[in-house]
Amino acid sequence: MEDLLKVKAKIKEFTASCGHQKSLELLELLPTGKMLRSKLILKIAGVNENSINLCAIVEMIHGASLLHDDVIDEADSRRGKPSINALYDNKTAIMFGDILYSIAFTKLTFMNPKIAYNISNAVTLLSIGEMIDVDLGKSFNTDYNLYLDMIYKKTGSLIEASASSAAILAGLDEAKYALYGRNLGIAFQMVDDILDITSDAATLGKPAMADFKEGKVTIPYLKLYGKLDINEKEKLRSLYKKDLNEAENNWIKEQLKVTNALQDSIELTRKLGYEALESIKDENNSSLIDIMKQMCDREF
Amino acid sequence: MEDLLKVKAKIKEFTASCGHQKSLELLELLPTGKMLRSKLILKIAGVNENSINLCAIVEMIHGASLLHDDVIDEADSRRGKPSINALYDNKTAIMFGDILYSIAFTKLTFMNPKIAYNISNAVTLLSIGEMIDVDLGKSFNTDYNLYLDMIYKKTGSLIEASASSAAILAGLDEAKYALYGRNLGIAFQMVDDILDITSDAATLGKPAMADFKEGKVTIPYLKLYGKLDINEKEKLRSLYKKDLNEAENNWIKEQLKVTNALQDSIELTRKLGYEALESIKDENNSSLIDIMKQMCDREF
Repeated sequence: MEDLLKVKAKIKEFTASCGHQKSLELLELLPTGKMLRSKLILKIAGVNENSINLCAIVEMIHGASLLHDDVIDEADSRRGKPSINALYDNKTAIMFGDILYSIAFTKLTFMNPKIAYNISNAVTLLSIGEMIDVDLGKSFNTDYNLYLDMIYKKTGSLIEASASSAAILAGLDEAKYALYGRNLGIAFQMVDDILDITSDAATLGKPAMADFKEGKVTIPYLKLYGKLDINEKEKLRSLYKKDLNEAENNWIKEQLKVTNALQDSIELTRKLGYEALESIKDENNSSLIDIMKQMCDREF
Repeated sequence: MEDLLKVKAKIKEFTASCGHQKSLELLELLPTGKMLRSKLILKIAGVNENSINLCAIVEMIHGASLLHDDVIDEADSRRGKPSINALYDNKTAIMFGDILYSIAFTKLTFMNPKIAYNISNAVTLLSIGEMIDVDLGKSFNTDYNLYLDMIYKKTGSLIEASASSAAILAGLDEAKYALYGRNLGIAFQMVDDILDITSDAATLGKPAMADFKEGKVTIPYLKLYGKLDINEKEKLRSLYKKDLNEAENNWIKEQLKVTNALQDSIELTRKLGYEALESIKDENNSSLIDIMKQMCDREF
């Protein structure tokens, strides 16, 4: 997509403006991913100087958060490529993350203060969401509200701020797009949580069913736990954070199926998607409908 | 100082506004230090709502940078207290640093855009300065300009931005105060580098002569290297990053004395101080003169 190339060029320009050659070299090593946030911004605000700047700022913030995430999660790959902490070291990933964050914040000071507020406040939520995620992973969490609050902060907040800020740029109703973005972000994370169970390692580019082992009690597990009897609950708890053998893996998958926990999780993402579409139903933006439908009506 | 208590209260208020209890708990564990940047801001802009807000923002940024520094330097104490990475773990220090940074940037969006730019641009310089510091520490650096550029970015830039932003708040000449702040910051770092050599462990709260062992060729070593003959240069290089015995330590100290390298370094900090004072000579602000004189005319 040609417009996304403009965003990438702007990210390079912003990074070059700080006059530090090594940052430009590190930038080249950063996988860019699907650029969901940029696509969303451009579909709402159109392609113009302000929207491209906003995209670059948001992608740099997203990239910075992933750099720190990978250090925190001790991940050695990202989107199938070796991560910066693996290629260099944790120090470099932390420092380069700080550089990208601060360049993005500096460029934000030239934008509408409401946009600058939306985006920087989302970074606070995102950073808090990361800490809540780590803290929730310390013991078996059965509280749906804690999970929802965490994924809203960690994943939803920056997508919400991207959508609402794009709406401000385009002179549209901020609140409608904020709700759309919020639900898109939460649904996006839930879809990711579901795919961790339903996809194989080749598709995921990482081991399947890794979340539960890493301490993440995601939406399918939360739904499942609510449906199990007391003995089965105990069994599920006993498998938490463990290296599972095939029988244990199959038991979980079977339970997710027979209890409808997996199907209920898929329905929940669709419900969030419909709410989002309801919010923008008078906005006459078919691209946003497509983005949401592609995500929620996919095969699992 | 009562005014600094107002700054501390504002930092707490800002942190509380993000609604994350653990961040408030972590804040309590953060040693506040001398709050040089706040003192400077208040001496320039006076004590009022805007200046207290600016102080809180700058101190939160400084605190965040130290949290990440301690992870990068693998330091287990800070100002004589255990560091967050030692009390908790690296993850917590990284995440809490990100939270403090982003709250500060969020609060900046309510300030004069020129101030928001000055401060966030300083964070970019500071982050780049940190990376240059780490990179310079990989081999024996003999280039004074690289050292000067690094300490300006790492230490000078945020003090410069604090002074120039305070000047904007007070309707004073931004450039004069920027130069004052820049030189104060650079001199502050050089004084720190000199004290590493002239002070004992008890005064420093950390081992003496630690910089050279950690790979930092600071101003006294740079001056010394320039004055040694080729054999002595080789000897100094051979001691770089080593655990030194008493004889080796004494040789360095003796050379720093007989070559006047130490005295020249002290003179350089004074020269920077005088330049700073020259810049604000018509500003009629005796407190700023005192701050600089206290730093540069101290005992070493």
